[in-house]
Amino acid sequence: MLPGELVDFSHGDVDSEAFPPTPGSLQIFMDGVRSGGVQAYTEYRGREDIRAYLAECLGKFTGRAIEKADELIITPGTQGALFLAMAANISSGDKVAIVCPDYFANRRIAKFLGAEVTDIKIDYLDVECGAGIDLTQLEEAFKAGCKSFVFSNPNNPTGVIYSSEEIGEIAGLSERYGVTVIVDQLYSRLVYKGYDYTHLRETSLSPSKLITIMGPSKTESLSGYRLGIAIGPCEIIERMEKLQAIVSLRAPGYCQAVLRTWFAEPSEWISKRIMGHQQIRDDITRILRSVDGLRVRDPEGGSYVFPKLPTLGVPLDLFVKALRHQCNVIVTPGTEFDPMESGSIRLNFSQNRQAAIDATKRIASLIGRYRLGLLDTNRTAAPRRPC
Amino acid sequence: MLPGELVDFSHGDVDSEAFPPTPGSLQIFMDGVRSGGVQAYTEYRGREDIRAYLAECLGKFTGRAIEKADELIITPGTQGALFLAMAANISSGDKVAIVCPDYFANRRIAKFLGAEVTDIKIDYLDVECGAGIDLTQLEEAFKAGCKSFVFSNPNNPTGVIYSSEEIGEIAGLSERYGVTVIVDQLYSRLVYKGYDYTHLRETSLSPSKLITIMGPSKTESLSGYRLGIAIGPCEIIERMEKLQAIVSLRAPGYCQAVLRTWFAEPSEWISKRIMGHQQIRDDITRILRSVDGLRVRDPEGGSYVFPKLPTLGVPLDLFVKALRHQCNVIVTPGTEFDPMESGSIRLNFSQNRQAAIDATKRIASLIGRYRLGLLDTNRTAAPRRPC
Repeated sequence: MLPGELVDFSHGDVDSEAFPPTPGSLQIFMDGVRSGGVQAYTEYRGREDIRAYLAECLGKFTGRAIEKADELIITPGTQGALFLAMAANISSGDKVAIVCPDYFANRRIAKFLGAEVTDIKIDYLDVECGAGIDLTQLEEAFKAGCKSFVFSNPNNPTGVIYSSEEIGEIAGLSERYGVTVIVDQLYSRLVYKGYDYTHLRETSLSPSKLITIMGPSKTESLSGYRLGIAIGPCEIIERMEKLQAIVSLRAPGYCQAVLRTWFAEPSEWISKRIMGHQQIRDDITRILRSVDGLRVRDPEGGSYVFPKLPTLGVPLDLFVKALRHQCNVIVTPGTEFDPMESGSIRLNFSQNRQAAIDATKRIASLIGRYRLGLLDTNRTAAPRRPC
Repeated sequence: MLPGELVDFSHGDVDSEAFPPTPGSLQIFMDGVRSGGVQAYTEYRGREDIRAYLAECLGKFTGRAIEKADELIITPGTQGALFLAMAANISSGDKVAIVCPDYFANRRIAKFLGAEVTDIKIDYLDVECGAGIDLTQLEEAFKAGCKSFVFSNPNNPTGVIYSSEEIGEIAGLSERYGVTVIVDQLYSRLVYKGYDYTHLRETSLSPSKLITIMGPSKTESLSGYRLGIAIGPCEIIERMEKLQAIVSLRAPGYCQAVLRTWFAEPSEWISKRIMGHQQIRDDITRILRSVDGLRVRDPEGGSYVFPKLPTLGVPLDLFVKALRHQCNVIVTPGTEFDPMESGSIRLNFSQNRQAAIDATKRIASLIGRYRLGLLDTNRTAAPRRPC
């Protein structure tokens, strides 16, 4: 046992000692409830004046004006936006290109819709700049008939940001082959010092072929309100709304009011939040790098780090269980993001700083115990397995 | 023009002059937010202690104990429960039996899933007791290979309650043919004096083939929090949870706290609420019955009334538009619930009482203006159409 306070790296800590929700969010929610039916029963796509407000903020943020509130839909979380965007564009039998590793739901939604997935690799550990996307593979997928491409930027789980050149190439190829791009930019407000972020909306890619997804669940810690948005051409937003009407009706009416705090945070609040995450990132990547044989890329945005562990004497799922039971640490196995990533774990380091440092040290120690070399040395009659 | 205050009969009025949310619900929500991550990041199926609480209440309410909290999932609204229940049980090409008329989403979800719909008629206007379901048609559908049956009770839009005999027959047939039943009991707490309500969970139907859906959006006016639940066997609940993980992740975490008010309302609160609706029901059915040629069945539960209008000189969609523009009244056309119901409209009478009465009088007047006979008499050069 390596005792210590429970740290759940599978999601961020929104408690007050870590990264609490946007100031004023609860007050605005309460105002929403008090305003009654107008906030409870919004249009299925979300309340119009809130969509108009968001269209203005997000147009500026993403580098291309959003002409109409009808180019935007409010959804139950970014997850809801992703599901609707994919379901409104992908039918059974369609081919869809999906980055590997990437957010676990991308391929599960494709599978639910009966689509055929083509993996697009990112070589995130071996490039110094950008995500390391295999553009040849991407073009071949498009040539072979993929009409949709889904990816997250910053990438979840690795935290790498696609370079401006990569985004330009993705735009060019998608335009050339008539591919619809669904880009999950959930973490695009949380970009670390020294890195640039390029929105696909800034490129030459036709807006009629692009759906951009965001939400205030992460950087702003508003996950408990289940809010997300998608920006796209009116006809796709309309299809998404029709689907939303049968899947969940609308994003929770009262919660939608909280979106009025988005992009209206107190000045310096976002920059302090980024700085707070950057410190923890630096702390824990330093600890991880001290582990012999471990490879890790510094996250450039978002709050995930995705170390590739040295070869262990136990399978990944058992190591993850051992972390939980022996170290009081919860992490997400890499196989959630790519079936081939059986040597990696994902940590969401949006946590109390000291707790995250201590927990990462316990992870480092447990790797030491379970690494193949040491296991060989210590082997006794029965193979050592976590309890 | 028939001037008057806007009444939106397409949904209930949750403002304080009509039927506001359960007392204390906002306070409990705030407590949930303050408790932080434990309420924001629940299991995808919903927070366990809340599910355990609901399992106890809903076991008692539905007449059969719910053994484990894992026989229950919390969803984003009853809509979310319905989508997940259908998607977890129905695949492309499956045959599904759906009542006509019934909630609009039933057949739209079936279509989204690629299922083939078999209509089951209810003869709600011509029976005195029960919904008037065509049991012969139901058995034929089951014989022909329908493996799922979806219906609401009380029926939406008509407000009729299936008799104990009908529910017994549905249970018997479903058991005999191995059919899975998805029953939407959203309005089952709002049953008027003189009517009995039979839960399918009380019958001999095997609980392994039954999914019961409910939620606090209607009777309790908590729609703005987007909360619903489904009760079913563990393995189906597990499939629903896996789907929820890709569709919307979870019901809004903070909102889930509000479920602690459900079935814990102040004594008399529910009975007063039922009484309040019953008065409005009586008021507006009296006005509707005064219209020559209009047929209506008294709703026995819920807050919908579904009059069949006399033959009008304009198509239903134009009449509904005329109601909106000339009378400031919004209703839902019957075709939303059954393509054949082109002569009916649905009114949700969970409204401020006087406003509902006045608006129903305006509906009655407009029917008078547009009924075929009068139109014939008044016909001038151009056909008369609403603006």
